[in-house]
Amino acid sequence: MSQQHDDQVLLAHGSGGVLSHELVARVFLPHSRHAALAALDDAAVLELPPGSQLAFTTDSYVVQPLFFPGGDIGKLAVCGTVNDLAMVGARPLYLSAGFIIEEGLPIADLERIAASMAATAQEAGVHIVTGDTKVVDHGSADKLFINTAGVGWVPTGMRLSGHLARPGDIVLVSGTVGDHGMAVMSQREGLRFSTALESDCAPLYGLVAEMLRAGEVHALRDPTRGGLATTLNEIAAQSDVGIEIEETRVPVRAAVRGACEMLGLDPLYVANEGKVVAVVAAEDAARILAAMRAHRYGRDAAIIGQIVDVHRGRVVLRTALGGRRLLDMLTGEQLPRIC
Amino acid sequence: MSQQHDDQVLLAHGSGGVLSHELVARVFLPHSRHAALAALDDAAVLELPPGSQLAFTTDSYVVQPLFFPGGDIGKLAVCGTVNDLAMVGARPLYLSAGFIIEEGLPIADLERIAASMAATAQEAGVHIVTGDTKVVDHGSADKLFINTAGVGWVPTGMRLSGHLARPGDIVLVSGTVGDHGMAVMSQREGLRFSTALESDCAPLYGLVAEMLRAGEVHALRDPTRGGLATTLNEIAAQSDVGIEIEETRVPVRAAVRGACEMLGLDPLYVANEGKVVAVVAAEDAARILAAMRAHRYGRDAAIIGQIVDVHRGRVVLRTALGGRRLLDMLTGEQLPRIC
Repeated sequence: MSQQHDDQVLLAHGSGGVLSHELVARVFLPHSRHAALAALDDAAVLELPPGSQLAFTTDSYVVQPLFFPGGDIGKLAVCGTVNDLAMVGARPLYLSAGFIIEEGLPIADLERIAASMAATAQEAGVHIVTGDTKVVDHGSADKLFINTAGVGWVPTGMRLSGHLARPGDIVLVSGTVGDHGMAVMSQREGLRFSTALESDCAPLYGLVAEMLRAGEVHALRDPTRGGLATTLNEIAAQSDVGIEIEETRVPVRAAVRGACEMLGLDPLYVANEGKVVAVVAAEDAARILAAMRAHRYGRDAAIIGQIVDVHRGRVVLRTALGGRRLLDMLTGEQLPRIC
Repeated sequence: MSQQHDDQVLLAHGSGGVLSHELVARVFLPHSRHAALAALDDAAVLELPPGSQLAFTTDSYVVQPLFFPGGDIGKLAVCGTVNDLAMVGARPLYLSAGFIIEEGLPIADLERIAASMAATAQEAGVHIVTGDTKVVDHGSADKLFINTAGVGWVPTGMRLSGHLARPGDIVLVSGTVGDHGMAVMSQREGLRFSTALESDCAPLYGLVAEMLRAGEVHALRDPTRGGLATTLNEIAAQSDVGIEIEETRVPVRAAVRGACEMLGLDPLYVANEGKVVAVVAAEDAARILAAMRAHRYGRDAAIIGQIVDVHRGRVVLRTALGGRRLLDMLTGEQLPRIC
């Protein structure tokens, strides 16, 4: 076999034939010992805990570049999907992984990404049990896109939804905002800042489980594309409530703030991949905050505002100078291909 | 808003902000009344029948062109995934749908594809309950890629696997082979044949359910990429058995045979999207065949061979002229982007 054959993904790796089987055996199977994946049947057959509901979600990942400070597309593809499960209070159990590969991708890159997915899945407590690989000709995709879908287990009686925010509830965020988006941007644009920017990409079910144990949580959401501002607008609209946020209480790293100023961006609209926004019962807010701060992914957690029964469907920011301004949902495109 | 804004997908439609919400509301939500999708939470929360196992599978679809005789990428994305569930005996219940869209795709195309997915999902008895839309810049993808993942319900005691073929078992195929691949090829290459070629793209759980009622089925597989020959090789390898196929018994449409001859292709290696290969207990083969022929998607079903305890791991074709030749797994790439 030629040098090229061993080093790069070829169209024939997507044929469904011999090379497809070789690629799966070489790159993906070494990272999974789950019997359902190893069986290589058309679908994985899996056990679910009894007496539960199923949570099901999907996201595609098209981040560019594939590798960035604090993560890569594989880590992102696991975190993003297990986090979406965690946001409805589900324990993530199983993931699928679909790869769309541009012909010519170095197999070493694919191996590095598969290893990163496996390590992140292990940390998140999920198994990648089914997958698919497609290869498209050079120029028909940009290196690699990954889709993951996730299945999780929702305990009986658990009900979290963006529809359940109530006036009087407290709004928390689990840490600094804008880290992921600015880390990817800095890598992409070759920007150099005095302090390194790093993605916050992390699996959040462990943090969420601690929060659920600590008190009454009504809604959770991870502020990814569109950032904190867009997520808050979604909750305000879904629950038909107003939200008031104190600008000075929203944690933002100095490096992120500096990079945002340089690029004319607002950190409240920049994507996060390891943060959760929580709407919780007022009487439990302090306990939930303490539980968040005790967790490695919630050390910078803060109470940032409250749910109000005025300006329904809208989010109002109380600024550092004491003014008030409407915090709209993101309009237009701020940072393409950030996740 | 500009003409372009209304007609084509823009990068901002993938922002997660206002335009993303508008696109989902305009194109996707009108086709689904499932409460879990309408809730627009991060994950769908779903009921599962009690006392069952879960089947879970995924595929990405990169077929080119998006529309072809007998189907389109949306119909394909539903059929391919519900069929993978059916192949382990699972009743398909829920689908996720992830769209990766190249900037500039006409929104009318997306609407047509969403409508096709909805109609196919209805026929297949599944609900699309969760989804995701990403937009990449012009030149970073080829119009549209779709990933679907599927969740199904496996009745207690059901066990179908490519590992369960046993010497003496009978091999059936549910109809003519090569239709899908040649329909896409003819569209792509602008070939004109005397008889129209049409994809066999169809959801197969209904057919499979009839087969399971009729007798003892050991293994099912849908012969997609790599075609019938590759699928048979997979079963031979997984079960460590030999397979003997009678070439004259394999149904092939005259138009497909003609197109294959013109292009130098072997229909046994051409993709199908509405066919099932079954390995069944010999004593039930006639009953299962009758059940298949009574179903609209199995009218041309045929017994094509048997499982043997010689040449383990290999598939042998008994040719029309009485010779025998080894039927290998597909090597190289025959038809890129066929599904």
